Amino acid sequence: MHLRDATPADCGTLLNLIKALAEYEREPDAVIATEADLLRDGFGPTPRFHARLAELDGKPVGFALWFFVWSTWQGRCGLYLEDLFVLPEARGHGVGAALLRDLAARALQEGCTRFQWQVLDWNTPAIGFYEKLGAKALKQWIPMRVEGVEAIRRVAEGKGA
Amino acid sequence: MHLRDATPADCGTLLNLIKALAEYEREPDAVIATEADLLRDGFGPTPRFHARLAELDGKPVGFALWFFVWSTWQGRCGLYLEDLFVLPEARGHGVGAALLRDLAARALQEGCTRFQWQVLDWNTPAIGFYEKLGAKALKQWIPMRVEGVEAIRRVAEGKGA
Repeated sequence: MHLRDATPADCGTLLNLIKALAEYEREPDAVIATEADLLRDGFGPTPRFHARLAELDGKPVGFALWFFVWSTWQGRCGLYLEDLFVLPEARGHGVGAALLRDLAARALQEGCTRFQWQVLDWNTPAIGFYEKLGAKALKQWIPMRVEGVEAIRRVAEGKGA
Repeated sequence: MHLRDATPADCGTLLNLIKALAEYEREPDAVIATEADLLRDGFGPTPRFHARLAELDGKPVGFALWFFVWSTWQGRCGLYLEDLFVLPEARGHGVGAALLRDLAARALQEGCTRFQWQVLDWNTPAIGFYEKLGAKALKQWIPMRVEGVEAIRRVAEGKGA
């Protein structure tokens, strides 16, 4: 198994893995991202995300996509894991756990004092796994989201939903 | 009322407002951030956050601190609002609402397709206010967090909590 940073040449591979994740979650049409989006936002002068690829026998089988967040109280950045996925046929080799360990090491290198992600509340096996690792479930915090340009515009214009 | 981007010269003002927020939340000792932290991470070559200041009669009375996040499925960045605070004595002038509208406009300028933040689950008035604005509460998602360098190191080394 080999882990490495994704390069601009990997955008097609990354997009395939993102689509495989969406299919696995039974939302194959939810991915509107394109290779051009990945190239622009991941590999421009100010990267909006970073990605690690996991290879098994030289073939890409998983990825982790992350970016920096920042804590006002700590005055330090955190590493936010947006997506971690391993192809179903490549599971059982510890690829997911290796990606998680790798990202934790990266967080330390980058001076982060937090390592964060989100999990679905019905996914109790995952929550248990993460808690064993040392993660805490912040159940009192609810993510709020204004989705889409039109909805954001209504907020900007002081209009309601 | 005047809103403007914070500059390096505002780090002291920002830190005072961050501390006022922590005091308001009855956690005055939770802020370990320093002016040097704000300067390094907010105003270096790769800013880890952005901040807006709200002034009333030329005096700083509130702030919003935000950074970019990224959605793999949308292939676009989002604007994440980490903190928004208005000094108790300056409330009732619409400063908080103005900061929120201002950030929504900034999200549009930056090409973001999401505008996100978190709220405490017991804060039902705030949740109701945000929902009227057009935000959705993503109650099925639980934030997970590994806090502190030692806990992150244990994950990196494959050890448990």
